[in-house]
Amino acid sequence: MGGKAFGRQMTERIYFDWNATAPLRREAAAAVEQALALTGNPSSVHAEGRAARRLIEHARGQVAALVAGQPGDVIFTSSGTEANMLALSPAIETADHKRPFDRLFISAIEHSSVRAGGRFPREAVEDIPVDADGCINLEAIEEALVKAARPLVSLMLANNETGVVQPVARAAALVHAAGGLLHVDAVQAAGRIPCDIADLGADLMTLSAHKIGGPQGVGALLRFREDIHFTDPLIRGGGQERGIRSGTENVAGIVGFGAAAAAAQQLMAKEAARTLDLRQKLEAGLCAIAPKTVIFGGSAVRLPNTTLFSLDGMKAETAVIAFDLEGLAVSSGAACSSGRVQPSHVLAAMGVSPALARGAVRVSLGWATTAAEIERFLGAWRKVASALCKESKERPEMAA
Amino acid sequence: MGGKAFGRQMTERIYFDWNATAPLRREAAAAVEQALALTGNPSSVHAEGRAARRLIEHARGQVAALVAGQPGDVIFTSSGTEANMLALSPAIETADHKRPFDRLFISAIEHSSVRAGGRFPREAVEDIPVDADGCINLEAIEEALVKAARPLVSLMLANNETGVVQPVARAAALVHAAGGLLHVDAVQAAGRIPCDIADLGADLMTLSAHKIGGPQGVGALLRFREDIHFTDPLIRGGGQERGIRSGTENVAGIVGFGAAAAAAQQLMAKEAARTLDLRQKLEAGLCAIAPKTVIFGGSAVRLPNTTLFSLDGMKAETAVIAFDLEGLAVSSGAACSSGRVQPSHVLAAMGVSPALARGAVRVSLGWATTAAEIERFLGAWRKVASALCKESKERPEMAA
Repeated sequence: MGGKAFGRQMTERIYFDWNATAPLRREAAAAVEQALALTGNPSSVHAEGRAARRLIEHARGQVAALVAGQPGDVIFTSSGTEANMLALSPAIETADHKRPFDRLFISAIEHSSVRAGGRFPREAVEDIPVDADGCINLEAIEEALVKAARPLVSLMLANNETGVVQPVARAAALVHAAGGLLHVDAVQAAGRIPCDIADLGADLMTLSAHKIGGPQGVGALLRFREDIHFTDPLIRGGGQERGIRSGTENVAGIVGFGAAAAAAQQLMAKEAARTLDLRQKLEAGLCAIAPKTVIFGGSAVRLPNTTLFSLDGMKAETAVIAFDLEGLAVSSGAACSSGRVQPSHVLAAMGVSPALARGAVRVSLGWATTAAEIERFLGAWRKVASALCKESKERPEMAA
Repeated sequence: MGGKAFGRQMTERIYFDWNATAPLRREAAAAVEQALALTGNPSSVHAEGRAARRLIEHARGQVAALVAGQPGDVIFTSSGTEANMLALSPAIETADHKRPFDRLFISAIEHSSVRAGGRFPREAVEDIPVDADGCINLEAIEEALVKAARPLVSLMLANNETGVVQPVARAAALVHAAGGLLHVDAVQAAGRIPCDIADLGADLMTLSAHKIGGPQGVGALLRFREDIHFTDPLIRGGGQERGIRSGTENVAGIVGFGAAAAAAQQLMAKEAARTLDLRQKLEAGLCAIAPKTVIFGGSAVRLPNTTLFSLDGMKAETAVIAFDLEGLAVSSGAACSSGRVQPSHVLAAMGVSPALARGAVRVSLGWATTAAEIERFLGAWRKVASALCKESKERPEMAA
């Protein structure tokens, strides 16, 4: 990233923004490279086309296996965002329900691509509140479901900002009792915690390759009921992905997704334990250096890799730049907002004061994160926090 | 592609299906590899994010340059199909027109992703006929335009099956005189013939990376009027691509697209002349071997690389398999139909008899095609055509 001539003098950069995007896994890079060397449109009947088709079908099985699903469940898309747009349609039929969904219920902490409401009219979309820990309120879901003739519910399995894991299985039972379908955005959870579909009970699930070490530009919608029929596919044309998602398949991307899914699945248990240990060291260090540090969702079940924290008087945009200058890549929240630093809707939904929310910094870890990197982060935090402390002491004088 | 142990004894395969997908250009492969080695979400504000953003913006300029457009014109998508779906919306506003388009006129020979009609209701979509050469009837456009209060027109610059180049500039003048907008699907034309926007006069244009030697899974919609406002983006969420197309950008794919566009632009004139020469050798050979061979659109202006031909009594599905067994990858028409062999809507629109259309085989060439490869194809054609000839002579006896 520039500065080659001075490379040795420059501090090595450390990446703490794995929830925004993860590095490409070695296995995925190798798979992508092999696929790119082949030529073939998977819809072509000649040998080259059939070889491309085989690569896709192999990857389909790998992605399905990550959530203990079947290969036939997987519909490849270009991103988690596209998968969410495809899933959130009033016009999904099932064997027992031909009339459209009349309501879409989403939690108040969903990703912006779910908050956009898919293809529902805005007035048909309703937020479900969360508690102070950022956990979805199941009673509120139950109450909301009564309002709909046929509800679609979309909940994330783990929040991208706080890492808080949501009670999806219990929500699924409520949704199904009300005759609805449950879509689960598992983009941040997959590969980090078990997402077996049998345990979750979701009907539809969104995954994204680049969050688990696959390439950017690939996602999937999984459909766990064969009778779910998309009467109005988002992207129509050549009829790829069994007519549900048209467009020449991103063969290399899909193959990389499959390889990343396989690697993530294999290493998950070990990595989760290792990452959780690092995160605990991080959080203990944050609070030891600045005892007033607030860890959001600190008492909730969270992803092993995610810490969202703040300190009164801190401004996230300033802190992110300060860390960046120290060679540390962290985030002020979701990265999906075109670089704009906006107040977090997640923290607002949790009832966090705007002043504290404004300082929220996310540190997210991954398989390459080391204890030494955590130490370096804490060293930088010492500087940032003491500057803040100094500033807050000086503030009365400066106000004169 | 299997058979490694017998690799030396196997006949080397030759790829004649460049209109379905092209091999990745060397320049694109190098660019993709470099981008994959970096980690960063282009929406992140840290150095890694900004580096990813820079890569995208560089590629945006390269793609724009291929059609002599501006970087700001380019909206990256996941495919040409997605770009078409985004473009074909009734809800596109311009400075002078806030009411929705009431009609979508498309030619009868468009790609399936345009024939799907985007987000127009089916009854608002109307076909414009073509002549026997597969060229759009301009008078029919003029007549059709009268029917609409505000028309959107979508025409391809070159047909994917026949290669016939369409009179887009003249159509643009008619469409603009009627107060409409013109979308041009230039997926097959780009990189093969000049597509300067100043000459074409289109308002919107679709491009696809993998047809010009970039990776699969990347496309673009170009918007040549700043006042064109997509009030209903197809994929909404994080607000990437200036709010027109959400989802984390496929950085490596986009970078590969840019590199392919730059290479295609640089080599176009030379490659077009070389490919045309090969195609003329091919067509002369086809007709010399089987004088009744029909070259579709043979007297029209065509892409230099595309030949669609047939012979009475030939069945395309059989011929494609016969060529495949000879090591030659050809197509029975568009590859975007999930491997199904269906009668070509393009040939039907040209008034070709179903019997002749059923035998249509497409041979499409590219920058790696050599004269020796054309010779090998003609050798295989000699076998296929003589088998057909023999069969047709035997047919009266067999009918007994």
